[in-house]
Amino acid sequence: MITLRDIKAARERVGKIAIRTPLLPLKFGPADTYVKCENLQRGGAFKCRGAANKILSLSPKVRARGVVAYSSGNHAQAVALCAQQLGIPACIVMLDQSVAHKVEGTKSYGAEVVLGGTSSEAIRKRAEEIAAERGYTVVPPFNDELIMAGQGTVGLEILEDLPDVKAVVVQIGGGGLSSGVATAIKESKPRVKVFGVEPEGAAKMHASLAKGELVTLAGTDTIADGLKPVRAGELTFAQVRKYVDEVVLVSDEEMLEATRRLILKEKLVVEPSGAASLAAILAGKLKLPKGKVCAVLSGGNADLAAILEGKFAGTATGTVQPSSR
Amino acid sequence: MITLRDIKAARERVGKIAIRTPLLPLKFGPADTYVKCENLQRGGAFKCRGAANKILSLSPKVRARGVVAYSSGNHAQAVALCAQQLGIPACIVMLDQSVAHKVEGTKSYGAEVVLGGTSSEAIRKRAEEIAAERGYTVVPPFNDELIMAGQGTVGLEILEDLPDVKAVVVQIGGGGLSSGVATAIKESKPRVKVFGVEPEGAAKMHASLAKGELVTLAGTDTIADGLKPVRAGELTFAQVRKYVDEVVLVSDEEMLEATRRLILKEKLVVEPSGAASLAAILAGKLKLPKGKVCAVLSGGNADLAAILEGKFAGTATGTVQPSSR
Repeated sequence: MITLRDIKAARERVGKIAIRTPLLPLKFGPADTYVKCENLQRGGAFKCRGAANKILSLSPKVRARGVVAYSSGNHAQAVALCAQQLGIPACIVMLDQSVAHKVEGTKSYGAEVVLGGTSSEAIRKRAEEIAAERGYTVVPPFNDELIMAGQGTVGLEILEDLPDVKAVVVQIGGGGLSSGVATAIKESKPRVKVFGVEPEGAAKMHASLAKGELVTLAGTDTIADGLKPVRAGELTFAQVRKYVDEVVLVSDEEMLEATRRLILKEKLVVEPSGAASLAAILAGKLKLPKGKVCAVLSGGNADLAAILEGKFAGTATGTVQPSSR
Repeated sequence: MITLRDIKAARERVGKIAIRTPLLPLKFGPADTYVKCENLQRGGAFKCRGAANKILSLSPKVRARGVVAYSSGNHAQAVALCAQQLGIPACIVMLDQSVAHKVEGTKSYGAEVVLGGTSSEAIRKRAEEIAAERGYTVVPPFNDELIMAGQGTVGLEILEDLPDVKAVVVQIGGGGLSSGVATAIKESKPRVKVFGVEPEGAAKMHASLAKGELVTLAGTDTIADGLKPVRAGELTFAQVRKYVDEVVLVSDEEMLEATRRLILKEKLVVEPSGAASLAAILAGKLKLPKGKVCAVLSGGNADLAAILEGKFAGTATGTVQPSSR
C-alpha cells in the first residue's frame, strides 16, 4: 500500500516534468463545482506525473539505458515526453487499433512506437520482451507504487488550492490516478468524500468491489479509450477499496455531453475519458455533500472533430472507433 | 490618463465578478513563453473585468436602474453577465451582422438584445437613446477610464504570477485591454517591454501612432471580430502612445494558425482575436528580449467548427463572416 508519505516524496520528482495545473471554478456548472485541469498538463494528461516519479526513481545508470511502456494512449505520450526531457531512449508498444492522433502524439515526442497486438495482454508481453532484449526498464501504466504515488500529487494540489473541498470525483481507468488521489485526500482529510467514476461499458473496478476480488471483464465497450482496461491492478484495487467511498457508472452519452460542455462553454479541451468525473456530477449520479466539489479532468487528447460532429453517437460495436477515421 | 493606482483600486470590484485566470507555460511553444488565459475568464473573455469595475463604481441607486451597452461580441456578454450577477436590468445593442453564437451567448445571461444597425456608430447612438429613454447607464466598450482600469488588472496578475517577465504581448481592439495592461506593467516595472498586436485588416492604433493622432479607418477586413473597431478611443490612444513600446500587425492566417495550435496542442479554446498576441510571437514579428514572455489570450468565444474546418480561410470580403453560417 502507498501512503501519503510516498505521494509527498513524489512531489519533487514530479515537479521536474509536470506543471502545477490550474484548479478552476466551473462557469456554467452547478454552484461550488471546480475542475482540476490535468487536460492542461504536459502531454495532455495527468500521466506524466506517475511516469516522472517512476523514471526519476531509477538509478542514473539504469535510467540511461532507456524505458519501455505499453499503452493505448496518454501513458504512452507521458513516458515519451519524460524520456525526451531526460534525454533517454523510449520505446512505446501500442495497440494495433490505437487512435491515430495518440500514435502521432507519441511519435511527436521522439519515441519509437511499436504496434504490438490487439490486446492489453499482447502489448504488455511485447514490452517485456523488448525490456529483456535491450535492458530497458518497463514503466507500467498503473499497477506500480511509484506510478500511483506520482498520480497522487494531483490530490495534494487539490487540497492546497481548495482547502475546504468536501468531495473529489475522479475517473478510474486502471486505478492509478484514483488510488493515488484517494490516498492523498483520505490520509490528509479523512472526512472529504472521494468518488470514483467508470464507464458503464468498462466497469472493472465497480465489478471488483462488488465481488470483493479483482475481476477481469470479458471486454469493454465505451468511447472512453483512457478508461478501457479490462482489469484493474492488484495494488490499485487494494488502494481504491480502502479509500474510495463509492464507484459510480456513466454512459457514453453522459461523457460526451460533459465533454461538449467543457469544450464549448468552459473553453477547456478534454477527451471523453477526462470528462467522466464531471459527467457523473452533471448526470446526478453522486450523493454529494454540501459545499465545494472538485472533478478531476484527467486528459485532453481528444479527437475534436469527432466530438463536435457527434460522430461518436450511435456507435456501439465492441471496440468503438470514432467513425471519422 | 489612468494610473497604477486606478488599476489597483479596480481590483476589489473586479474580483466580485471575475476570476483570477491561470497563467500557464506553453507546452508546444517557444521556450519561456507563457499565456495569460483570459479565454477561461467568466463570460469567455477579459471584458467582465472592465464592466465590473464600471458598474460597481455606480451609486447603488443609479446601478439599480439598469445598464446598456453597444458591442458586437465579448463586451456584450460581459455586461450581461455582470448585470445578471448583480440583479440589475441590461440591454445590449448589437450589430445586425453580429456572429450568431455571440448573440445567443449574450441572451443566455438574461440580457435583452437589440439589433441596432450595421455600424459601430449606429449601435452606439441606439444605446444612447435607450439610456436616455430608460434612465440606464451606458457601459462603453473601451474608451472609459473605469473600463480601462478594470482591464488593467490582467497586468497586475501577470506581474504577480511571473515576476521576472521580460515582455508582455497584448492584442488591441479599441485599446481598453492594451492600455490598462500597459499602464499596470510600465508603472510597476518600466523595463518590461509591452507589445501591442493588431490585425493587418484593422490596424487603427498602428495607423494612429504613425500619424500621431487618432485615425478612423475606412473599414476593416479581418476574421478577428473582437479587434474590429475602425477607431481607437481618445483615452486609450493616449495611454497606448505613452506606454506601449511597439504595435505590430498579424495576418488572418497567422491568427488562425495560432488559434488552431492553442486548441489542438495546448487544449485551450481561443478565438482568433484572442490568439493575435501569440500569433505575433509565433510569426516572429517581435524583437523579444531574452527571458520570459507572456501573451494575453484575450477571449475564447470561438466558432470552433469554422476554425477547425478551415472555413475562415480564403474569405476576404469586407466584413468577413464565417461561411458556415
